[in-house]
Amino acid sequence: MSLVVPSTGRLRPLSLAEVTITGGFWGRRQRVNASATLAHIEQWLEREGWLANFDLAAAGALPEGRRGREFSDSEVYKYLEALAWEIGRTGDAALEERFRKVVARVAAAQEPDGYLNTKFGRPGQAPRWSDLEWGHELYCIGHLLQAAVARARTRPDADDGLVEVARCAADLVCSVFGPGGIESVCGHAEIEPALVEFARVTGDERYLDQAALFVERRGRGVLRDIEFGRAYYQDDVPVREARVLRGHAVRAGYLSAGAVDVAVERGDEELLAALVAQWDATVARRTYLTGGVGSHHQDEAFGDDWVLPPDRAYSETCASVASIMFSWRLLLADGAPRFADLIERNLFNVVATSPSAEGTAFFYANTLHQRRPGTLAVEGEISPRASSSLRAPWFEVSCCPPNVARTLAGLAAYVATVDDEGLQLHQYAPAEIRTTVAGAPVALDVETGYPRDGVVRVHVRSDAAAPWTLSLRVPAWADGARLVVDGAAEPAAPGTVRVRRAFRAGDVVELHLPVAPRFTAPDPRIDAVRGCLAVERGPEVLCLESVDLAAASGGAVDDVGDVRLDPGIAPREQDGRVVVRVRRSAPPDRAWPYGAPAPDPATDAAFDVPLVPYHDWAERGPSTMRVWLPVVGA
Amino acid sequence: MSLVVPSTGRLRPLSLAEVTITGGFWGRRQRVNASATLAHIEQWLEREGWLANFDLAAAGALPEGRRGREFSDSEVYKYLEALAWEIGRTGDAALEERFRKVVARVAAAQEPDGYLNTKFGRPGQAPRWSDLEWGHELYCIGHLLQAAVARARTRPDADDGLVEVARCAADLVCSVFGPGGIESVCGHAEIEPALVEFARVTGDERYLDQAALFVERRGRGVLRDIEFGRAYYQDDVPVREARVLRGHAVRAGYLSAGAVDVAVERGDEELLAALVAQWDATVARRTYLTGGVGSHHQDEAFGDDWVLPPDRAYSETCASVASIMFSWRLLLADGAPRFADLIERNLFNVVATSPSAEGTAFFYANTLHQRRPGTLAVEGEISPRASSSLRAPWFEVSCCPPNVARTLAGLAAYVATVDDEGLQLHQYAPAEIRTTVAGAPVALDVETGYPRDGVVRVHVRSDAAAPWTLSLRVPAWADGARLVVDGAAEPAAPGTVRVRRAFRAGDVVELHLPVAPRFTAPDPRIDAVRGCLAVERGPEVLCLESVDLAAASGGAVDDVGDVRLDPGIAPREQDGRVVVRVRRSAPPDRAWPYGAPAPDPATDAAFDVPLVPYHDWAERGPSTMRVWLPVVGA
Repeated sequence: MSLVVPSTGRLRPLSLAEVTITGGFWGRRQRVNASATLAHIEQWLEREGWLANFDLAAAGALPEGRRGREFSDSEVYKYLEALAWEIGRTGDAALEERFRKVVARVAAAQEPDGYLNTKFGRPGQAPRWSDLEWGHELYCIGHLLQAAVARARTRPDADDGLVEVARCAADLVCSVFGPGGIESVCGHAEIEPALVEFARVTGDERYLDQAALFVERRGRGVLRDIEFGRAYYQDDVPVREARVLRGHAVRAGYLSAGAVDVAVERGDEELLAALVAQWDATVARRTYLTGGVGSHHQDEAFGDDWVLPPDRAYSETCASVASIMFSWRLLLADGAPRFADLIERNLFNVVATSPSAEGTAFFYANTLHQRRPGTLAVEGEISPRASSSLRAPWFEVSCCPPNVARTLAGLAAYVATVDDEGLQLHQYAPAEIRTTVAGAPVALDVETGYPRDGVVRVHVRSDAAAPWTLSLRVPAWADGARLVVDGAAEPAAPGTVRVRRAFRAGDVVELHLPVAPRFTAPDPRIDAVRGCLAVERGPEVLCLESVDLAAASGGAVDDVGDVRLDPGIAPREQDGRVVVRVRRSAPPDRAWPYGAPAPDPATDAAFDVPLVPYHDWAERGPSTMRVWLPVVGA
Repeated sequence: MSLVVPSTGRLRPLSLAEVTITGGFWGRRQRVNASATLAHIEQWLEREGWLANFDLAAAGALPEGRRGREFSDSEVYKYLEALAWEIGRTGDAALEERFRKVVARVAAAQEPDGYLNTKFGRPGQAPRWSDLEWGHELYCIGHLLQAAVARARTRPDADDGLVEVARCAADLVCSVFGPGGIESVCGHAEIEPALVEFARVTGDERYLDQAALFVERRGRGVLRDIEFGRAYYQDDVPVREARVLRGHAVRAGYLSAGAVDVAVERGDEELLAALVAQWDATVARRTYLTGGVGSHHQDEAFGDDWVLPPDRAYSETCASVASIMFSWRLLLADGAPRFADLIERNLFNVVATSPSAEGTAFFYANTLHQRRPGTLAVEGEISPRASSSLRAPWFEVSCCPPNVARTLAGLAAYVATVDDEGLQLHQYAPAEIRTTVAGAPVALDVETGYPRDGVVRVHVRSDAAAPWTLSLRVPAWADGARLVVDGAAEPAAPGTVRVRRAFRAGDVVELHLPVAPRFTAPDPRIDAVRGCLAVERGPEVLCLESVDLAAASGGAVDDVGDVRLDPGIAPREQDGRVVVRVRRSAPPDRAWPYGAPAPDPATDAAFDVPLVPYHDWAERGPSTMRVWLPVVGA
């Protein structure tokens, strides 16, 4: 089964058995994830003692010796979820063995009544549920359930026991937080989507009821007020009354995902409409060009409308994972291509940015402007700084690495969906799709060099008795796209383009997306990037990195703050790279940086400089970097 | 005696007995401070239990019942310091009585060996000095010493015992942290300037030695690494090797002040030069137009060079107090007028901004751009949010109110200095100055409506036997200033203007400062305000507040984000207010706020709107506000 399986909705997701990514941009990343990242994560979970915490719990040896933050259990569960999807994808026997060993250690730590958390409830520890604001107990159980859901959907008959462990924990949650129980919620949402998904997997409606209760309770001030305000954990306004996402960006995204799940299962159109409106408002005014969200470092939170400083972008990797969860659920429920557009943007520009090429170091925050060359993490040391300017192998709060891992392992699920009429292609990657439409088998192979190349070629491998519709998403940026069927081209406007026929094996449908580099301007209300342009190419955001600037200027300029873009010369492809025309700008140093308005600072002769995809930045050592380039004279 | 009394230096400070502010802008604020703020502070210290903590300590009843954060003792000491200066200024008997009562409660809590802190060292509390990173024990003692210094300088013969309490605590610090003792420093600098000042007051060099030790130790990684990095508490680079201020802005300022004190007393020219260079670099690249510093909310810290977002300006009130302490010491040591320029900027635009007109509510952070109308603090409730958008009566961390109070009480000290050649006027306010120059009495009365009016009239009230030099600071912004002596005017370029003669009673020297409103542009490297102008008038930064915008546009526009400034029409005075020409700008709402470069958004007909001094903003209820105004077409 698939990542998310709503019982109703416009579109039906496909399972990892139905879609396989066979190569290309994402195939490469899936291979690195499988061959390097998963082992890297387990090694750090061991090294930091976060796995051993379960052994100590089983041995009755806690709280002495417990290591890690209050939510460290959840990283183990996210790792299990990643393993489960990966095993579902490839059937790797070695991973299966690792999976079972970790599950056994987790299961041994569970208490007879189903409680499972290494940080609370023992003598010498704070009591269970005594710190709902910061304790993350329900959050951790949520990730446990998600791991169990992944397992149940990929190995429904496995005897490892994870689903039973999750069921006991979920039952306890329902009895403790159900009607008549503790009338509160977890400071960090996550249990909400997890309970709905667990209800879908088990068929037990109680879990859905509990999720609905959690969604309805939040926003009524059930949690304590804190310095950041209750908006931090979305306890300021009830979900169905809110207008826009706010507060901690990961929490907001997970909560929204769970609320869509509840709305869909309950047929709650009002709640669903509220969430669509919140998604729209957030995308229109609180989202970075990369799709990333969160402009406050302080509380890892959304800023007000239009507060999108590139140099202080927090844009946590996990917030983009949460955004994808939210968007994917809305796509399934509603079908509109804009939800897939945002998923694509987040995948190429945040999820692909976080891990290093080797898959063993990660960005936690994803700044859009690096002013000083960052420092490399100390070899083999945990990084205390989430906002570290270079990728680090592991963090004190290490939510992002396993979140990336589980997303990449399950990535194929985002490629396509079906409905009664046909099949919808949402994300473009070389892929094999073997599914059914209206009961009839449909086989497609997608061939593409996307995003380097804009041609997506869909080979039909099955004969259909009756007509069905192949729908292809045309991204909002893809003005001038063309659809080619039987050698005949026609314009394909951004949105969705459809071909309906009784397809025969050998049929080919081509979508030609214009991936030539282009200038992108910000809304004039985004104060922080006034007078700047960015460059995009297809779904990729590009950036200027100092290492290229130094080379292009013959060493004359090595700081990305010292050039201005010539907006009159369009970005061009040259030797496989995108280049732009810039001029060196050296404003005079002054004792006081404010004064009477003066003419534009003098600029030197123009020269060309290559850009790199944002997801590739900082792969060549410490550097400065800009996505938004000030134009000459601004 | 005065606020700071170095044993050497270019300029000699005057005491509160030698300078009195007699009215005007600052006289009004001193009256409000005396009549409302001081009582307000004591009331909240009682209400929150921060004073009662000392009673509990004396009664042996701690730790049960202790309230407030780990540094709450320091607010009591800063309050005592404010009282001491105020008593020195006015001799108010009621304040004297309050002062003595609080001192008695503090003294009763001191332990026999001199230790004094309500948070550490008792059974059930963490051991003394066990958390130098965050515990603030030395910081609190520093503020105790500063209170004692203020008392010793204003009532040297008083028998209240505060100086003795401070001496015992200082002796303990020397014995615990001296050679052979704990080789570390306090996470929050403050003990450094306090010990030097205490050495000056007591004549005991040991305190200076200890301060020098603390200054030299810091920067060598003696404190633990933390998420924000050791730069947070300036433990990343030794003071004498640093190039610019960084980390927590208040800590950086206090440390710098103490380091200047050490450098001056030790004749350490290298250290002094390093501090001047750091001041210069910080002012040139890390300071807001208001003089405020600190662009990170997360760690209340400086950002990198040019990171000065107006909407996320932290610009903590206390950081400007610290900046004034640093600048004042450099002014005394070096004599250059740029140090007094920055003091003026901070006084008018941060210190005057923090307290409400009534003196009973305060800004903790001083944003330069308010995007959403803020919320009023709940009547009588402590505010958990330092970055609260409206002034609040008290905060969970309430360092700013007493810091403002002590600054205002001692403000006269910043007005003038003397040297062997004459007298220097640095800050302009109606004032009486009665001092001596080279042994001869000098009496001056300053008459001025500054900053509303630019004329500063100095009346000489004493006859001199020998020539002496009257120096007046011409602020850097005051292009076109004129000096008028005996009716003859001459140009006075920014910097220092001097009149040397054997002055006679009745002589009048006038400085005419051009306070017409003017546009100010930012350095092009300050990304966050590209394409914007600000308006200043004399030393005051002005701002646009939504309440004025709504009135001026007949209700058509009520959000300061919806107008663009016409840079072609200079700001003008009209009916006593400064007005600028703006146009309504309403960019279309789009689903995605990035796209192909488009022409400038359409703007409606122009209209005039009045600005207010930034220090007066938010006095008329919740509003939006901008200091930096985007210009038409930007």
